[in-house]
Amino acid sequence: MTQAKTLFEPSTVVLIGSSKITQKVGMTSPWLFKNVIHNMKKFFKGKTYVLDIEGEAGYKSLEELPETPDLAVTMLPPNQSIHQSEKCAERAVKAIVAITGGYENQQRQRLVNLRKEYGIRILGPNAIMGVINTANGLNTTFEKDVMPCIGNISVIAQSGGVGASILDWACYYSIGVSKFVFTGDKIDIDDVDLLRYLSEDPETRVICLYVEGTQKGSEFIKTAREIVDRKPILALKGGITKEAAQRALSHTVSIAGSDAVFDAALKKAGIIRVNDVEELINAAIALVKQPSLEGDRIAIVSNVGGPAILAADAAIKNGLELAPLSRKTRREIERRYPGVEVINPIDLIADARAERYSIVLDMVLSDPNVDGVMAINMLKSCFFEPEDARAIVEASRKHPSKPVVDVSAGGEDFIRVNKVLADTSVPVCNSPEKAASVLRVLRAYSRILARKT
Amino acid sequence: MTQAKTLFEPSTVVLIGSSKITQKVGMTSPWLFKNVIHNMKKFFKGKTYVLDIEGEAGYKSLEELPETPDLAVTMLPPNQSIHQSEKCAERAVKAIVAITGGYENQQRQRLVNLRKEYGIRILGPNAIMGVINTANGLNTTFEKDVMPCIGNISVIAQSGGVGASILDWACYYSIGVSKFVFTGDKIDIDDVDLLRYLSEDPETRVICLYVEGTQKGSEFIKTAREIVDRKPILALKGGITKEAAQRALSHTVSIAGSDAVFDAALKKAGIIRVNDVEELINAAIALVKQPSLEGDRIAIVSNVGGPAILAADAAIKNGLELAPLSRKTRREIERRYPGVEVINPIDLIADARAERYSIVLDMVLSDPNVDGVMAINMLKSCFFEPEDARAIVEASRKHPSKPVVDVSAGGEDFIRVNKVLADTSVPVCNSPEKAASVLRVLRAYSRILARKT
Repeated sequence: MTQAKTLFEPSTVVLIGSSKITQKVGMTSPWLFKNVIHNMKKFFKGKTYVLDIEGEAGYKSLEELPETPDLAVTMLPPNQSIHQSEKCAERAVKAIVAITGGYENQQRQRLVNLRKEYGIRILGPNAIMGVINTANGLNTTFEKDVMPCIGNISVIAQSGGVGASILDWACYYSIGVSKFVFTGDKIDIDDVDLLRYLSEDPETRVICLYVEGTQKGSEFIKTAREIVDRKPILALKGGITKEAAQRALSHTVSIAGSDAVFDAALKKAGIIRVNDVEELINAAIALVKQPSLEGDRIAIVSNVGGPAILAADAAIKNGLELAPLSRKTRREIERRYPGVEVINPIDLIADARAERYSIVLDMVLSDPNVDGVMAINMLKSCFFEPEDARAIVEASRKHPSKPVVDVSAGGEDFIRVNKVLADTSVPVCNSPEKAASVLRVLRAYSRILARKT
Repeated sequence: MTQAKTLFEPSTVVLIGSSKITQKVGMTSPWLFKNVIHNMKKFFKGKTYVLDIEGEAGYKSLEELPETPDLAVTMLPPNQSIHQSEKCAERAVKAIVAITGGYENQQRQRLVNLRKEYGIRILGPNAIMGVINTANGLNTTFEKDVMPCIGNISVIAQSGGVGASILDWACYYSIGVSKFVFTGDKIDIDDVDLLRYLSEDPETRVICLYVEGTQKGSEFIKTAREIVDRKPILALKGGITKEAAQRALSHTVSIAGSDAVFDAALKKAGIIRVNDVEELINAAIALVKQPSLEGDRIAIVSNVGGPAILAADAAIKNGLELAPLSRKTRREIERRYPGVEVINPIDLIADARAERYSIVLDMVLSDPNVDGVMAINMLKSCFFEPEDARAIVEASRKHPSKPVVDVSAGGEDFIRVNKVLADTSVPVCNSPEKAASVLRVLRAYSRILARKT
């Protein structure tokens, strides 16, 4: 545990690379090395040393460093990285992030031996972008200046590409991240180690996994089961078809196993499965911001008819029900807003602004027949203005035990409403279908919590 | 037919509204009236007259106009709109776009009677944003300055909100549109009329429908069947669950019918069904840009492993197969790029730039075992630059009978690659799952074409 902690919370880091060597397979390159140096110097709050085996960009050997760093980041071809790793282990460096890939089995074994002999912890090899901790600025990614904002979502990605697309999404939409880790070949530090660390990390409130395969299946399930009481875990699985599984074997040396087996394992572990990266991110945001959905009955409150109908279809497809509004709620809304038809989905009509949303949402969220709400507010074809969305946040805050998910469907409309809602407690999706899948996840998490008690 | 043509191709248009009346239900408002005037004056290449019943914003009555316009756009409460429509019919105006809603059954009947007595064609009422023709600038929407760019996708939307979200998407991502029409209550001009018009429209190459219900079922099927030989038709259906269908009844007076019945009708008609607005748009773009997919066997060519695995999973889920690459293709790629593992999905490795894509795509598209390609090019975690995507366009152009769909997964990565590809013949999606569903649609269209011959 101490060393897994070092992976995210080192005081001193040494970046080990070469300002000359380029190797196609495995990604060794001066460009990559330079960018990691750039990111670490820019973001990391601890001490960063640079070890360039050519001696040009910094120190030339580990012996020259004025102190023993906690963490080493290796960016050389396999044999050279292993050589440097051996020196690190001998000098009691606590952990290594092995960024570059292209290791043969026997080369991987040499790293495993180091781990056994010295107790040094190793992430990777083939960890691609390594590790990010937004709290202390640790950032071993080679994407210059790419740093997500501080938040409560942590991500464990077995694939560089999928991790990169999650990271790209998080940065582009300013989604708050706590820790981000690319596991690569997982010769030492694995999902179980990382789950344990993240379960104790006060800044992590939701854990997202991209997995192609996992070793230590039963330990993984047991660990996850313990965590999900306190923190939801979401998983996206790659290689669920036998065709893709063949590729996963070669990609991250993962034996994927059958999808049904994996699905059963996730269920047992209390991990919620999602279907794609976008669903993973939307669900994670909602789990950070909103409570779980304690029952199936949702109300849809919209300023447009068609998207509300699509929302109703999507809710049913996601195993939810349209809440039968109580007589009291219906009467109150009808009295106050003649012309608003009070069947669920509730059509507030195109001229609805903040006030009408505020009042109707409050009534609907007070209704004991309603477990959660999907609010829909289009700008185009309506009078709604982005700032009006604040009323949804206020209504949601008054009812902290029932989740509210917002929808502004489309391209520009979503961007404009998201600008207002991104920093609030209400998640927003760009289609009713995506919001319905988010509500499905909030419902699933409530079932997992109920199972435990 | 002449009059349905007038709906899209009038020489002269009169906008009939009030600079004073506001009515919540039905959306009559001076603001709406003003915005329609603004858009028509800004975009429409024909002659626009303004008839303000208060006499402030233009002419006060139809009699004052120097000529009889082809098309009238009514934006008054039901009774006043009907009164103006009667005058229009008497003066031989050819068609009416009845923007505002809130009509009772007997009020709708009065419009039906006008149609019967005078032959005047009526879109709506409750047509919300009415009609757009990018070729002549006709734009009766009340979203100020909202005008999609010229292209070959036409949209028939029964819902203002869903139509608005499609329009918003089209504008935000610069998706080329030919005609856009909001049908509303469909008391006269209906899907069949519009399909017939669009089938003859040389600027329309793909037709998108959002439907909640349709009258004239058998005529609709027959008409569509004739069209799909030449132009694909895509449909998104709202109200597929009985809960949502109840809302659809009140929304657009549609009797939705069972989903299974509707699905069978679409199949019979050769209409391709999609699951949400995003899929509708992505598929429409691909159908405009690329040929249909003549077989199930697709190759995935990627610079990242994980997203390629997700792509493989998604392809299989969408009824496609991973093409078994021919021995020749495998050998050629292996000889040229040692280190690139030639199983499908093909992992070009993270340092692949334009040249490698160009060469490998050409080899793969030349392979008789391959029916189509999904290219994946992440920027983050890779060396690929947005401009490199042009190589994909060139490779695609060399093989015009096999579709190529590109993926740049994530937020910023997609935006940057889309900027390069938007005006080219290669469609781009922001996730492998969306690209797989696009390929499913291209495959479905090939099956529809085969059925006909």
